Amino acid sequence: MDAFTFHNPTRIHFGAGMIRFLGKELKDISISRCLMIAGGGSIKHNGVYDQVCQTLASHDIKWTEGWGVVPNPILDKVRDLITLARQDKVEAIVAVGGGSVIDTAKAVAAGIFLDDVWTAFTRKEQIQQALPLFTVLTLSATGSEMNGNAVITHQELRHKSAIYSPLLYPRVSIIDPTVQSSLPFHQTVNGALDAIAHILEYYFVDEQPVVTLGIDDALQRTIVAMTDRLKIDPADVNARSNLAWSATLALNGISGIGLKGGDWACHQIEHAISAVYPKVAHGEGLGVIFPTWIEYLAEREPARFARWSLNVWGESRPEVAVKRFREKICSWDSAGCLRDLGVKDKDLPLIIDLIMQSSSIGAFSKFRRSDVEALLLLAY
Amino acid sequence: MDAFTFHNPTRIHFGAGMIRFLGKELKDISISRCLMIAGGGSIKHNGVYDQVCQTLASHDIKWTEGWGVVPNPILDKVRDLITLARQDKVEAIVAVGGGSVIDTAKAVAAGIFLDDVWTAFTRKEQIQQALPLFTVLTLSATGSEMNGNAVITHQELRHKSAIYSPLLYPRVSIIDPTVQSSLPFHQTVNGALDAIAHILEYYFVDEQPVVTLGIDDALQRTIVAMTDRLKIDPADVNARSNLAWSATLALNGISGIGLKGGDWACHQIEHAISAVYPKVAHGEGLGVIFPTWIEYLAEREPARFARWSLNVWGESRPEVAVKRFREKICSWDSAGCLRDLGVKDKDLPLIIDLIMQSSSIGAFSKFRRSDVEALLLLAY
Repeated sequence: MDAFTFHNPTRIHFGAGMIRFLGKELKDISISRCLMIAGGGSIKHNGVYDQVCQTLASHDIKWTEGWGVVPNPILDKVRDLITLARQDKVEAIVAVGGGSVIDTAKAVAAGIFLDDVWTAFTRKEQIQQALPLFTVLTLSATGSEMNGNAVITHQELRHKSAIYSPLLYPRVSIIDPTVQSSLPFHQTVNGALDAIAHILEYYFVDEQPVVTLGIDDALQRTIVAMTDRLKIDPADVNARSNLAWSATLALNGISGIGLKGGDWACHQIEHAISAVYPKVAHGEGLGVIFPTWIEYLAEREPARFARWSLNVWGESRPEVAVKRFREKICSWDSAGCLRDLGVKDKDLPLIIDLIMQSSSIGAFSKFRRSDVEALLLLAY
Repeated sequence: MDAFTFHNPTRIHFGAGMIRFLGKELKDISISRCLMIAGGGSIKHNGVYDQVCQTLASHDIKWTEGWGVVPNPILDKVRDLITLARQDKVEAIVAVGGGSVIDTAKAVAAGIFLDDVWTAFTRKEQIQQALPLFTVLTLSATGSEMNGNAVITHQELRHKSAIYSPLLYPRVSIIDPTVQSSLPFHQTVNGALDAIAHILEYYFVDEQPVVTLGIDDALQRTIVAMTDRLKIDPADVNARSNLAWSATLALNGISGIGLKGGDWACHQIEHAISAVYPKVAHGEGLGVIFPTWIEYLAEREPARFARWSLNVWGESRPEVAVKRFREKICSWDSAGCLRDLGVKDKDLPLIIDLIMQSSSIGAFSKFRRSDVEALLLLAY
């Protein structure tokens, strides 16, 4: 089990009604004006917006509203919001939404201190400062509510890029699972698949950290079982709570302890797909790529996938476990192949070129161009 | 799954050689003089003391040494160390040892700001300030390296009492599992039993947080399997690492998420035993009390113990699972009953009186005097 440093300072308020703590949390560090960042307006329908306004107003905190963050969030929106944050001299960012909103908020929180925020993504500049960030989560998926990562798409370059900084951990995140009851089921599934993918990016890298792998088994089994329950009853609060907390743990550090930073080939591949097809949901794309990646590698090295097959799917043979994984994804009405996602075969060369722009693909198993081509063919 | 707030700001450096980061961590917050608190001197034999001195000296940090903390640490020692800390005007506390040393260090860190530190234990005074605390762990057991708890014994009152404060989370804890290779096996076992007991105090309280219970299954199975491996080879670094991280997770908040704060009857009962018999190791005492507590309650309510029986011990019947739990403890040469611990039957009334001083015993199942008497008889 490799050496590691773990530090996750985010305070989580979890449960029905916990949004009411937001105002006090901002007040406790003397914030008087913040920028509220949000998506397309769903928070006006599920009551979250009203709750946020109420807790801010009752603590005499003024706010500016920045709407319109889209899934696979884009750099131009980050830039607009930085301008807005500077104009209004805000002292904190409040993200109200899912992972796209939170990632945008992180880029704004850091970008306000940079001449050009994209230089943080290209590593030309280091993040040395960031405004304090508070989040109210409305879709459990990316884990962004309890980590220091953000992924943003540069539209002209068709490039998704990530930043990480200890300064980008939200100071406080509020997870009220009951506000997710009104989500369309396919969004719940996208979140579940994203969370499973985060765990799987670490899972196969090393067999030594048995405690982490045992936790990761439990997280995967829980996510699958809770998604099944939510298909039947989207208002099952206990299933929603267990799914939400599992998704947070899937990428807050705990699931990757001792696992060498993970592999991340599947994320690199999916990022290229959704950079070309921005309407492909990240989770759904991962739901196509990950089973294929396992299938592709398990042929060469079945022993490495034995633990996962048995502990997560109750199957001794990886090829059967992968089949069950795919069947489960399809039972949730999520795409089973690239064609289902709407990817056209004429675009595969462009997607492959985008993937190959990275200096390396994967860690546990480094992918060459021929591997990427074979995998996309298998996934098609 | 109940609402909860989770916040654990401790930074962990984990792995062989990580003690070298201590000096830099103190320097980063401009500490120039600290109090090093330690036990009986084992750290001079396993190389830890030399490593600590070296990293402090190389960062120009001066230190005072406070030795002699004993297992089941006592209030008088806390008071002596507070006097020393005041005399030498230290700006931080560095605990180098196991849970007793860290708990003592927490009491000193808070007590230096109080007229009488015991008032924090009796709740007469609130902890409003504490010196920053750094720990170097030498025995994985109590989880004190990543939580805000401390337990101290008032010798005259024969009373063990606990404090908790968000201010008592160590700022940084260093866990180098390799320094535990030279521990006598019975100390490893005491630590393992303490960690299992922490998980069990939460485990039976509610069935709804399935993600937490799944994690707790994994933690228990890992602790048992790794202790078995360490019995054969105390220098098995991977077993030592997995055991160490499991023990930290057992009481850093993660194992109790959604579980209503836990039950804690067994800890209350064991605290009375080791208050009367200070030579009884806390973990070994819990290894006697916990199986008996499960046995006692499972007779009335077997369904509540079904999940534990199956997932941790692979048995469908709780009475068989308890038997396997006890046999495992005995296979590690740890006490199987109160008599093995050296408890005399003439002292049982005193122990019972001490237990009954608490305003209530347990939470999930409240114990009356008759329950305590029956349990101790069964454990005898």
